[in-house]
Amino acid sequence: MKIVCPQEELSKGVNIVSKAVPSKSPMSILECILIDASSGSIRLIANDMEIGIETVINGRIENPGIVALDAGVFTDLVRKLPSGDVTIDIDSNFKASIKCGKVKLDILGRSGEEFSYLPRIERNDKVIISQFSLREIIRQTIFSTADNDNNKVMCGELFHVRGNKLRVVALDGHRIAVREIELKESYDEKKVIVPKKALNEISKIINGSIDDIVDIYLSKNHILFEFENTKMVSRLFEGDFFEVDQMISANYETRIKISNKELHSSIDRSTLLIKEGEKKPIIMDIKDNVINMKMSSIIGNMDEDIEIVKEGKDLVIGFNPKFIMDALRVVDDEEIYVYFVNSKSPCFIKNENNSYVYMILPVNVNVG
Amino acid sequence: MKIVCPQEELSKGVNIVSKAVPSKSPMSILECILIDASSGSIRLIANDMEIGIETVINGRIENPGIVALDAGVFTDLVRKLPSGDVTIDIDSNFKASIKCGKVKLDILGRSGEEFSYLPRIERNDKVIISQFSLREIIRQTIFSTADNDNNKVMCGELFHVRGNKLRVVALDGHRIAVREIELKESYDEKKVIVPKKALNEISKIINGSIDDIVDIYLSKNHILFEFENTKMVSRLFEGDFFEVDQMISANYETRIKISNKELHSSIDRSTLLIKEGEKKPIIMDIKDNVINMKMSSIIGNMDEDIEIVKEGKDLVIGFNPKFIMDALRVVDDEEIYVYFVNSKSPCFIKNENNSYVYMILPVNVNVG
Repeated sequence: MKIVCPQEELSKGVNIVSKAVPSKSPMSILECILIDASSGSIRLIANDMEIGIETVINGRIENPGIVALDAGVFTDLVRKLPSGDVTIDIDSNFKASIKCGKVKLDILGRSGEEFSYLPRIERNDKVIISQFSLREIIRQTIFSTADNDNNKVMCGELFHVRGNKLRVVALDGHRIAVREIELKESYDEKKVIVPKKALNEISKIINGSIDDIVDIYLSKNHILFEFENTKMVSRLFEGDFFEVDQMISANYETRIKISNKELHSSIDRSTLLIKEGEKKPIIMDIKDNVINMKMSSIIGNMDEDIEIVKEGKDLVIGFNPKFIMDALRVVDDEEIYVYFVNSKSPCFIKNENNSYVYMILPVNVNVG
Repeated sequence: MKIVCPQEELSKGVNIVSKAVPSKSPMSILECILIDASSGSIRLIANDMEIGIETVINGRIENPGIVALDAGVFTDLVRKLPSGDVTIDIDSNFKASIKCGKVKLDILGRSGEEFSYLPRIERNDKVIISQFSLREIIRQTIFSTADNDNNKVMCGELFHVRGNKLRVVALDGHRIAVREIELKESYDEKKVIVPKKALNEISKIINGSIDDIVDIYLSKNHILFEFENTKMVSRLFEGDFFEVDQMISANYETRIKISNKELHSSIDRSTLLIKEGEKKPIIMDIKDNVINMKMSSIIGNMDEDIEIVKEGKDLVIGFNPKFIMDALRVVDDEEIYVYFVNSKSPCFIKNENNSYVYMILPVNVNVG
């Protein structure tokens, strides 16, 4: 194999596919990046068997062929090459001679025979979404997934397409995050559970532009994201996701309107009083047009008032401060509505058309 | 004690003194920041008994007094306060009530009785240097100090004032870094060994401007840096520093002129071939007007040529690539001169007036 391509192309491609390289794998060939120049285009491929990424880079094939190169060494090397045309020449022992200007380096490569290519996904049922929307909807929900759970579906997100709506749901047993966006076209109903790892990685490799799109294809076991010259395939989680409609449709007894920023910075300050590893609730005392925020610990005490517009009953309720802050951080509205039922029931941070709903369970507190 | 001061002042002051707070100390009072408003100004002080920092902040003293506040909690808290006037009110049990706008927090403080103030340094023999020069001369030498060494002076730098010159020397047994700058005034000769920790911290808290100065006072056991409203005192290392003049004044057999950038990036690429923890020399083969750079390892091989202007004999010599790169990184000249004696003797990267000299010992290599 012999190829010539600009350093910038190679660097961009390697950065994209390296997201799917496992740091350690029982199949050591998977710790490589595959360069496949056997069929008219230069494809870079990496695959950790959960997600696989393939990208086509611009360049000239002088001699078709395939080689697998250690991902760590190759990625560092490509980054440190000067700009200009890079020649990669593989001999019959898979030794890769890499030249770029005056630079001359050899590294040992491997045959690509044992490498796992991406599974072939049938291209029916395409869903089109802008790169901006995909990145946003992930950012606004992914913090509510579980890190490790016996119930694996909690480590993923429900992607639910119905008509021209995409709804994404994440939950971890303490809270639920729901976002819904409108798509440009209408589709048949589809429900899949996408592992959070795939969502984290796709967020990093799309450019997030509102003008660029991602095509999403769904098969029984896989999801394929396709954009520009790049494809990313991930396994899906099997099983049924939780039905959350009932949980998030409760009536309320108390509704407050409050400044997102004031609420966020007040809760943020309360966390100063919490030692690492300790759990302390923040107590919210809602009365008339003021919410009083209290926390006590061995470090000290907080006692602050924030003005609100209240509708309904007075209420005292406690929360894990982190959970409230996580939700506030991804809500762009400056003024938000928070809904309560009673001190034992979850609160809801949501807007009128339910394009976002964040449900958070309270912490049991002794209300004197 | 009761003081009122702008959040910005408090935040700036706390950031400066927190550099001298130990993360853990057998004297737990030292894990605090002392606020001393007992004598007409608001002073913040921290002291880990190696270095001590004191800074005066603007504000109003409503009630004179002294309090020690846990540095971690207080620093975080100050950062998270909104901008505006902060009132700190200490009651007879050293409980600190902190108010800022609607914010109301209490934290437990301590009496400052056991706190260690900065040692008093006599203000004779001031040396004046610009903040820019001080920061630069530290950056350009400190990488050559030893991290841990039986010979403690290697963990510090020699500051040597003579006439209108300041010379700074650092060495770690493998290399020597020497920088010399001109001062605006002339001084009596002084030689002290300053611990690297003090130099690292002072670099962080000065602004590095060419228009602002630092006054340096030397006593037998201490160095005092004074600028704007801030003082930093550090112990000095006792003992004699190495005499390096002889070591760095050798004649040469070979001198090359080379592009700093080309040499740096070539050596940088060679490090790709080194596994973590492994030691591999880079072999430089100097011949006529080309230097050939070679490295071989189980990962692969490098073989590159760089054009040079050579004077004197041909030479083959090996170096630890990191040591050469460390020196090149802090030399601003685009074209540099490197001097060699033979393959067993150190090389010197230096300019004509010796305002910088980097000496690096070679690695023994088998030259076939």
